[in-house]
Amino acid sequence: MNITAAYTDLYQLTMAQVYFSTKHDGRVVFDYYYRNNPFDGGYSIFAGLEDLLDILENLKFSSSDLLFLEQHGFERAFLDYLRDFRFQGNIRSSKEGDVVFPTRPILQVEANIIEAQIIETLLLNILNFQTLIATKASRIRHSAKDGVLLDMGLRRAHATGGYYASRAAIIGGFDGTSNVKAAEAYNIPASGTMAHSFIQSYGDELEAFRDFAKVRPKNCVLLIDTYNTLKIGLPNAITVAKEMESRGEQLMGVRLDSGDLAYLSKRTRTILDEAGLGYVKIVASNQLDEYVIKSLKEQGAKIDIFGVGTNLVTGKPDASLGGVYKLSEYKGEPRIKLSENIIKVSLPYKKQVYRMIDQNGLFYGADAVGIYSEDKVNEMVHPFDSTKNLDISALKHEPLLESVMENGKRVVPFRTVSEIAEYSKSRMAKLPEEYKRFQNPHIYKIGLSNKLKQERDTLVRQHKT
Amino acid sequence: MNITAAYTDLYQLTMAQVYFSTKHDGRVVFDYYYRNNPFDGGYSIFAGLEDLLDILENLKFSSSDLLFLEQHGFERAFLDYLRDFRFQGNIRSSKEGDVVFPTRPILQVEANIIEAQIIETLLLNILNFQTLIATKASRIRHSAKDGVLLDMGLRRAHATGGYYASRAAIIGGFDGTSNVKAAEAYNIPASGTMAHSFIQSYGDELEAFRDFAKVRPKNCVLLIDTYNTLKIGLPNAITVAKEMESRGEQLMGVRLDSGDLAYLSKRTRTILDEAGLGYVKIVASNQLDEYVIKSLKEQGAKIDIFGVGTNLVTGKPDASLGGVYKLSEYKGEPRIKLSENIIKVSLPYKKQVYRMIDQNGLFYGADAVGIYSEDKVNEMVHPFDSTKNLDISALKHEPLLESVMENGKRVVPFRTVSEIAEYSKSRMAKLPEEYKRFQNPHIYKIGLSNKLKQERDTLVRQHKT
Repeated sequence: MNITAAYTDLYQLTMAQVYFSTKHDGRVVFDYYYRNNPFDGGYSIFAGLEDLLDILENLKFSSSDLLFLEQHGFERAFLDYLRDFRFQGNIRSSKEGDVVFPTRPILQVEANIIEAQIIETLLLNILNFQTLIATKASRIRHSAKDGVLLDMGLRRAHATGGYYASRAAIIGGFDGTSNVKAAEAYNIPASGTMAHSFIQSYGDELEAFRDFAKVRPKNCVLLIDTYNTLKIGLPNAITVAKEMESRGEQLMGVRLDSGDLAYLSKRTRTILDEAGLGYVKIVASNQLDEYVIKSLKEQGAKIDIFGVGTNLVTGKPDASLGGVYKLSEYKGEPRIKLSENIIKVSLPYKKQVYRMIDQNGLFYGADAVGIYSEDKVNEMVHPFDSTKNLDISALKHEPLLESVMENGKRVVPFRTVSEIAEYSKSRMAKLPEEYKRFQNPHIYKIGLSNKLKQERDTLVRQHKT
Repeated sequence: MNITAAYTDLYQLTMAQVYFSTKHDGRVVFDYYYRNNPFDGGYSIFAGLEDLLDILENLKFSSSDLLFLEQHGFERAFLDYLRDFRFQGNIRSSKEGDVVFPTRPILQVEANIIEAQIIETLLLNILNFQTLIATKASRIRHSAKDGVLLDMGLRRAHATGGYYASRAAIIGGFDGTSNVKAAEAYNIPASGTMAHSFIQSYGDELEAFRDFAKVRPKNCVLLIDTYNTLKIGLPNAITVAKEMESRGEQLMGVRLDSGDLAYLSKRTRTILDEAGLGYVKIVASNQLDEYVIKSLKEQGAKIDIFGVGTNLVTGKPDASLGGVYKLSEYKGEPRIKLSENIIKVSLPYKKQVYRMIDQNGLFYGADAVGIYSEDKVNEMVHPFDSTKNLDISALKHEPLLESVMENGKRVVPFRTVSEIAEYSKSRMAKLPEEYKRFQNPHIYKIGLSNKLKQERDTLVRQHKT
């Protein structure tokens, strides 16, 4: 499956047909944002932007897309429009890898309404998923401290979604992936050990270990739990490690994939050390996530490398990020969507978001949202509670949305996944610890400029009368 | 991203290199199965087979894959082997769309160990995900009874995994999808309505409805909750419906996307009926799943068409199916994997699975697993509790694994998604209701032939001594 412009919901095209036929094709602004942090956490890591820009620059309807739409009753003049369709709009975005928070725009699209609508599904599909996985990865990194983290999830990923999961995992703080295709495409470190089937195929575990170590002495990791970890697997691994030493080689590690990882890793460490194999690392896998790794660390488990699969690549338990794409301007006029639930009321206008930086260069704990044309925002007000406001005039204001695409062409240089991961790490270092904890994290403040709040409230009143 | 043979875990290639270099390249049998039904349910719907066969028939390493592997230290002779790599093995499988159960083989691969290992990740990735989603869809179908079910999940799907989710949803019982690309590729009915942004862009809802109805009078569904469902949206929709009648057209439906769907749908139905618009259907969406739909039905909600998104395409709350691929034979010799947990001990040998059919042609509630070369299995025994057995000599035995690929070529005709969906429906009709309920479903029995159980127990004892 190649991504073409038909990678969208049918209603985008139905609406586009109406806009086209009635010449209701003004310029619009759409906001991308989400309403709640995933995993009951205190932040998210924004990811997927580079992929999105790449796809948008080359987006077209294929001839088979057009044939399909013709068979579905779309009219000739509109099909001709679609044949020449290119995304020619502007995008202003947070930097990929930045730490982001609910309710404030992460990205804004400014385009003809037809183009803005056709790309909606694709944009949400790419950004929601990668942001979910980068955030999960970041939480796992937080637990693992300086342990090595490897993504091993492809077999449980959502089909080809696993390809994007491996990319997002690196952005969130993972060190490598088992996914060869993703490693190749995104220039990510690839890594792998051995499966139980390798040992089973030999029947005799020691013979299997010996063959493996002879052919692949570099980065050799032996899986020691196929028959019995401490009684069979570990003694066999020690035998092979000693044989490798006699050839001037070193066994890199042993892997535990079942049982009590805290207990087994400590016993394994002791036994390896007593055998003079202090350099042999311990790799652990088996349904790990941020909570299991945190608990293993607290129990003093002796694990150097964590292999994380299903819980990472599926973003469990949330499995989705509810990012939305809401119209905020049409032909220069502000637009909002009402809701019975006040926190679901959208914000009108083209906007800018400012991050407050304290005197030490760290995040102060507040992002302020203002109308794009506004001067400096000196006070931010709570979006729904007008009794709460904050004087931000003395803080440094960092504008977060920067132009990344103009008239359908990228205007920022390509950034590699490792550059984005480095940037993300530097941003996470500026976020105080209390926003990172898993239990009841501190709530990062999002405020509006007085002008934006007044304009929004006026629009709400107009629609309610 | 195109699927090539590098769509795998690195360790498959590392192990393959060892097999290749040491000529440890015997013929093997691998079993695909899972250990627990998803969603605490009583069954799964097997899906993904047609995609898998398509991919396997054309699987190759690309030149960039080979270059990447060369840079990662794989040796020349092995790279030459990979350059010519084709999957040339045999596959025996359950029919796609069949109702399947834990611990018994759903599919077996018989091939050279190198080929069998390289395709493992891909096979698990495709089958695990589609089986998860088809099963979720089947549960939602069970709740929705004869209501129309539409997949609208692409924006929250796991990137391009959404493409496969839309396919699997149809197999599990959905009627259509919003996903244009999937509809086009798999010949699935496509459907769509309108977004809030459409109405917001006009400012005036009535004007928006009128434009839409004029340009797209066929299958016209108006979204009525942008400002206020009963006070604004519904009266505007009724106005437009009457205008359509005066032009000899009919409004197809109105859509509710927020608020109390039970209450709003009942009020909407009454108001539409009083306006003489009994033919206008009610579409509902907003975080639906099998439980919400069941509750709506119990409350007497008047909903004709359900739009289901996130919970369907991400397979929430499970988000993954833990299907595994275990070695059961190497060069004709049986193989098992032990575990501290007895239910994780694998089954040796090439096997056949028989479904017990009762005198009415319905599923009796038991599948028996025997060694492939065995004659008729007259008694099945519990896999772990030898005091439990069942005389099955009087029941009809339906063999479930059929040859679908031989020497890398498919030997069964292509089946369309709608054919598979029809087949699945016919199989579900044979499964008694008690296996379908959500709370503590009846447990479908899986038994072994006496011979298979004895052989497995002998192998377990051999490895433990």
